[in-house]
Amino acid sequence: MTPEGGRDRGPKVVALGGGHGLYATLSALRTLHEQGKVSEITAVVTVADNGGSSGRLRQDYGVLPPGDLRMALAALCGTDEWGQTWAEVFQHRFAGDGDLQGHALGNLLIVGLWERLGSHVQALEWAGRLLGAKGRVLPMACSPLDIVAQVRESVDAEAVEVRGQVQVAKAPGEIVRLSLDPADPDPCVEALDAIRDADLVLLGPGSWYTSVLPHLLVDDVRTALQETTARRGVLLNLVPQAGETTGFTPQDHLRVLHEHAPGLVVDHVLADRHSVSDVPELSRAVAWLGGELVMADLRVGEDPHHDHDLLVTALEHLVAPPRTGLGAGRASA
Amino acid sequence: MTPEGGRDRGPKVVALGGGHGLYATLSALRTLHEQGKVSEITAVVTVADNGGSSGRLRQDYGVLPPGDLRMALAALCGTDEWGQTWAEVFQHRFAGDGDLQGHALGNLLIVGLWERLGSHVQALEWAGRLLGAKGRVLPMACSPLDIVAQVRESVDAEAVEVRGQVQVAKAPGEIVRLSLDPADPDPCVEALDAIRDADLVLLGPGSWYTSVLPHLLVDDVRTALQETTARRGVLLNLVPQAGETTGFTPQDHLRVLHEHAPGLVVDHVLADRHSVSDVPELSRAVAWLGGELVMADLRVGEDPHHDHDLLVTALEHLVAPPRTGLGAGRASA
Repeated sequence: MTPEGGRDRGPKVVALGGGHGLYATLSALRTLHEQGKVSEITAVVTVADNGGSSGRLRQDYGVLPPGDLRMALAALCGTDEWGQTWAEVFQHRFAGDGDLQGHALGNLLIVGLWERLGSHVQALEWAGRLLGAKGRVLPMACSPLDIVAQVRESVDAEAVEVRGQVQVAKAPGEIVRLSLDPADPDPCVEALDAIRDADLVLLGPGSWYTSVLPHLLVDDVRTALQETTARRGVLLNLVPQAGETTGFTPQDHLRVLHEHAPGLVVDHVLADRHSVSDVPELSRAVAWLGGELVMADLRVGEDPHHDHDLLVTALEHLVAPPRTGLGAGRASA
Repeated sequence: MTPEGGRDRGPKVVALGGGHGLYATLSALRTLHEQGKVSEITAVVTVADNGGSSGRLRQDYGVLPPGDLRMALAALCGTDEWGQTWAEVFQHRFAGDGDLQGHALGNLLIVGLWERLGSHVQALEWAGRLLGAKGRVLPMACSPLDIVAQVRESVDAEAVEVRGQVQVAKAPGEIVRLSLDPADPDPCVEALDAIRDADLVLLGPGSWYTSVLPHLLVDDVRTALQETTARRGVLLNLVPQAGETTGFTPQDHLRVLHEHAPGLVVDHVLADRHSVSDVPELSRAVAWLGGELVMADLRVGEDPHHDHDLLVTALEHLVAPPRTGLGAGRASA
């Protein structure tokens, strides 16, 4: 895990996101790490969740919502019996109708570690050691925050404020503006350092407004993304998400990303070959962000999620240093 | 941990009990294990708790009450940073007034492991591996049970039934009969095997009626204790316990033990030199059980709990095979 040792084995990759999208990226990166093609993996995770187990813990203990951090840790778990067993226990959700109903055990463990060790970063490191995690998991900020969106139901309607990740994710209508409350959460210095020190930074896939874009609204994170010497990749979703991005084209996703981080240059945009109807149009949008479009096979049939093996293959090209080329999948801009 | 490897390093010891008393014995045995004077430690733990975090979990999930098992695991934790940190997290109790209030994190982890792995024994083994535990922790039975006592407030009063470990522990008056409900809980085969395979079996110290005697009421456990070729030791409490054993002399403790397991021969009874007022009387009671009294310094000042270092020294003599002698502390019977 030392930078020196890492250099010999492959690039250092930082993945930003949350939920199932980040889980998919991290699972693929873990496989590449096992194959020696990635030296260091760092996840930088949204901490805006206000629903379910995370929401209750956040409300009762004033802590970061642990759910997305738990998912990221589980994605990076070891593949031996130790890692697999603890990941399963970590993801275990209590049933019944008692106190614990709906709580994920890993969430409780993360909160207990925080309360005991007094440090978010140290606690996540211990949780990672428990799972034999093949990388680090860090929060995008060290204080809990809320997503606030201005949403209008129709083009003529006045925008209304919707507050909370859960509420924003399912609000019908168009999100015209996204912000964080507080606007300047406590930075996670280790996450900023990881972004600046990376060879490749990946944003997405995932719930665009509630898992991917929030990182760009944290000033320190956006600045680190702009200033890093790392290549910057965006992984597009395969399908629009009902509520958040109903009717969005792939280029719409890039447009709102640009609106939330106007100065951010993107080097690579990875899209699924079968999920893009207008390749020239998407290529122009990517070029406008300063990058190039990488087309690949990423889904099996109509499954709306990235296929693990196909994502591994696509990311293998993306993580490889530029001089080795990006493979045959690249579309001309 | 193999029997063969173990033989070379010292005897195999099984400690039966619950709560803080068992914690003290196991902590001392762990130290002796580190010194190579004990090869294998197995804790066989009361599973009758119906109060606090354990009581709630038992009620909500129909599982064994995990609290005493958690304490035993923590007592055996490794002394390196890994073991110490996880033991601290394991013992962490949630504050506040939310869902988790009062729950010990280790209890939740044990229940999660049970639910996930479907086996009490396997789950406790995984919890032990997490803590780097220097021994095994097993339940005295594999189904939860209740302690039921017949208690009379005065010599003339009629006995009334008191149900539940918490209620029995604080019921004023004399306990005239103790039983379990169900009377024949599911046996823990591994615990029975450990007792039969041991070189030394220790009972006590601890809450006499609610942590120590319950083992003798499980038919399979009592039979294993009677049939084992192991030496059998009883560790007496330093002071009577308000409620359970108010006004009890050390020999009263032995008397009620005999009443609950009439056929049980005891080889050694360890008592604190400063907590026994009538040594000849206690020696006679011990001889009547078939054993010999071992007197030792076990407490510092008026502390009602066994001192760790003094208990280590006393147990070092007790665990040593008979041919090496029991040291100068033995009283003549």
